[in-house]
Order: sequence, then C-alpha cells, then structure tokens
Amino acid sequence: MYKLYVTRGSGNCFKPFLTLSQLEIPFQVVEVNVLEGETRSPEFLSLNSAGSVPYLVTGEGQGVGESNAMLWLIADGTDLMPRSPLERAQSLQWMFFEQSKLEPMISPARFLGHIVPERGVGREAEIASWRQRAATGLATLDAHLADRHFMLGDHYGITDIAVFGYVHVSDEASIDMDRFPAVKAWMARVESTPGFKPLSTLCDGAIAFSARGDTG
Amino acid sequence: MYKLYVTRGSGNCFKPFLTLSQLEIPFQVVEVNVLEGETRSPEFLSLNSAGSVPYLVTGEGQGVGESNAMLWLIADGTDLMPRSPLERAQSLQWMFFEQSKLEPMISPARFLGHIVPERGVGREAEIASWRQRAATGLATLDAHLADRHFMLGDHYGITDIAVFGYVHVSDEASIDMDRFPAVKAWMARVESTPGFKPLSTLCDGAIAFSARGDTG
Repeated sequence: MYKLYVTRGSGNCFKPFLTLSQLEIPFQVVEVNVLEGETRSPEFLSLNSAGSVPYLVTGEGQGVGESNAMLWLIADGTDLMPRSPLERAQSLQWMFFEQSKLEPMISPARFLGHIVPERGVGREAEIASWRQRAATGLATLDAHLADRHFMLGDHYGITDIAVFGYVHVSDEASIDMDRFPAVKAWMARVESTPGFKPLSTLCDGAIAFSARGDTG
Repeated sequence: MYKLYVTRGSGNCFKPFLTLSQLEIPFQVVEVNVLEGETRSPEFLSLNSAGSVPYLVTGEGQGVGESNAMLWLIADGTDLMPRSPLERAQSLQWMFFEQSKLEPMISPARFLGHIVPERGVGREAEIASWRQRAATGLATLDAHLADRHFMLGDHYGITDIAVFGYVHVSDEASIDMDRFPAVKAWMARVESTPGFKPLSTLCDGAIAFSARGDTG
C-alpha cells in the first residue's frame, strides 16, 4: 500500500492525495509538520534526503518525490492519464508551466500573506510581486481554458489535478479570481468530478510522523 | 517533419536537438534570435503565444513548448524512454528537479556572467547567489550519480539529456566542476553515447526565422 507523506494545507501534497482518492486506491497519509521543522529532522531526511513533501513510498519501498511526477506513477493505466504521446507532452508542458509560472508565485504569496502572516511583515513588496506574476500565469491559463472543458479538452485527468493544486487556493494569496472567469468555471467543474475531496480533508485519518517515528 | 525553433547556445534548446539527432529523426532547425527580440515579435507570438524557445511543431502542425515535455513526444516508443511506470515517475522527478534547482540558477548565471557580461555589471551579488544555489543542486546530483552509470541506472535516455542540457555548461557559469567528480564522469559518458553532437552544432544547417518569415 502507498504511504503519502504530506503537510497540512499544501497544494502540492493535495495533488497525489486527490489522485489516489479519486482512483479509490488504498493509501496511508503520514502528516509531517513542516512548520515545526519535521522535514529537516534526521528521521525524515533518512527517508527523503531532499527533505520535501509530498513524498510517496510504494508498497515495495520505492520513494518518489515531486508532486507532478508521482501522478504519472499513481495514475498509470487509468482513465486519468493522457491518452497519446502528443497528449502526454501537452500534459507535461502544463505541468512544467505550473511549476514555473504558477506554484512558485501563488505558494509563497499565500504562505506569507495568509498562513503565517506574521512572517510576511516587512515583505509586502515581495508578496505584491508574486501576486502580480501569478496573475500573469493565471491570465495565460484563463485564455487556454476559455474554449476547453478540462486542461486537455473534454477529458478530466492528472493535468487538471496538477494545475488545480495551487490555482484553487489563489484566493488565499489575495488574488482576485473574478478576473479569470474561465479558470473559475473550470475549478467548479473539477470540484464536481466523481470522488472529489477538498484540501481540508487531506489529513483526515492521517498518522503523525513524529509520534510514530515513521521512517518509511 | 518536425520543425524545432531554437536560439543559439541555449541548453534548453539543445535537449530536443540532441534527442532528435541521436534518434536519427529528420527535423528542421529554425533559428530565432532572442537577443534581438525575435521571440517577442508578432510573427513568433502568433506561432507560440508564450514567446519561448525551444518550440516544437509536428508534421501535423501541433505545437509543444517546454524543453523537457517535448522529449516525451520525440522519444516515444524508442530506447531513450523510461521503461516502467516507476522509471517514468523517477525520470519526471529529475526533470522537475532540473527545472527548479539547476536550470533557473545555471542559466542566468551563465547568461549574465558569460554570454552578455556587459548586462551583468552591477549584478555580481545576484550572480554569486545563483552560482551558490546551483552548486547545492549539483551536489545533490553528484551524490545521485556516485553509484550510477546514467540518471536511471545503466540505461542512457531522455532523463540524462534533460539534466545534461544546462549542467554541461555550468563551467560557463563559472562553477568549479572539479567539486562534482561523479557529474564530470557522467558528462563524459553522455558525450560518448552514439550520435552525440555538441551544443556548438545546434544551428548548423538552420534556417533563419526572420529572413524566412516562418510562422509555422
């Protein structure tokens, strides 16, 4: 059975969680407390030397990092996968876009402006710059989704999940999503797919990394 | 036949070029002059609205951006592809690592320190910071390659090409590669694979974007 190491509230951790949930694949969530430094602990670093979450460990003990990469293992052979070589390349084009033009801006703007605002004091200009650059990426996404039901066309899949992960918490980064109506309509469609679970349920039923001394 | 839009000297553009060359797939290189603003020209933006190179257009007129994404189309069904769902995820893990921990640091340090050094004047502290962060990523890569022949083990493939693209020009970013002996030994192995061509040959036989007015 898969073990998925996550931190509460993370859009990246949400991606493999949602994929596993929608595919009804059994998995165990292990909660690692990033704010308390648990990802830098010797126990976690011995599991994943990169010290990052999400981290996925297969039933055979193989570990995979990078949220978008693990979706290609979890969803292999399922209906959530891109269906041709061209679709696979297009899917990856959007996943690399997400990791360079959306996530690196939305995530810190949300973290410092919403999750731990006390740490954002004095960094207002930097946060504003992230918001502005995120909006540029969201405008590109909005144009793409204007005439599409899902990221690759009619068919929901891992590309939607990868892009949804952080885009759907853009409002928590104080980005006005009314500027991106096609993105808003697409988010509602994603939330209506079978077996969808919200980010707030990520750690329901999780075991704690520290308490358990879990090292994989 | 594939058309590959590139700019001279780019490690990202080199990746699909090397893949197509080693697979002996016929393709036409179109040279776009980024330094003269050709990627921001109306003609290029009508082809690729993201205004980025490399950009790949298939014989059927389908365009794909993002250097690492296009490798999955070009190499589909060949010996350069990862061979299992786990290997595909591991390959993508390294490709996302390359695009977040290596390329965003090596590329600007090389550009401002080596390619157009007159633009780097006054930005020495920023360039030093990129060099330092690149070295952190290269140390991770060195540890990974210490007991491996290629990125995924014994078998050369698109993961090696993706990581090689910018890592092999790290010396032009004034990074001392003697600190990373496993990376150096791996680079020599990559350069010895059948059909390898150096970055300096990227635009041999290319047609010019501007002169031809090529819009795809």
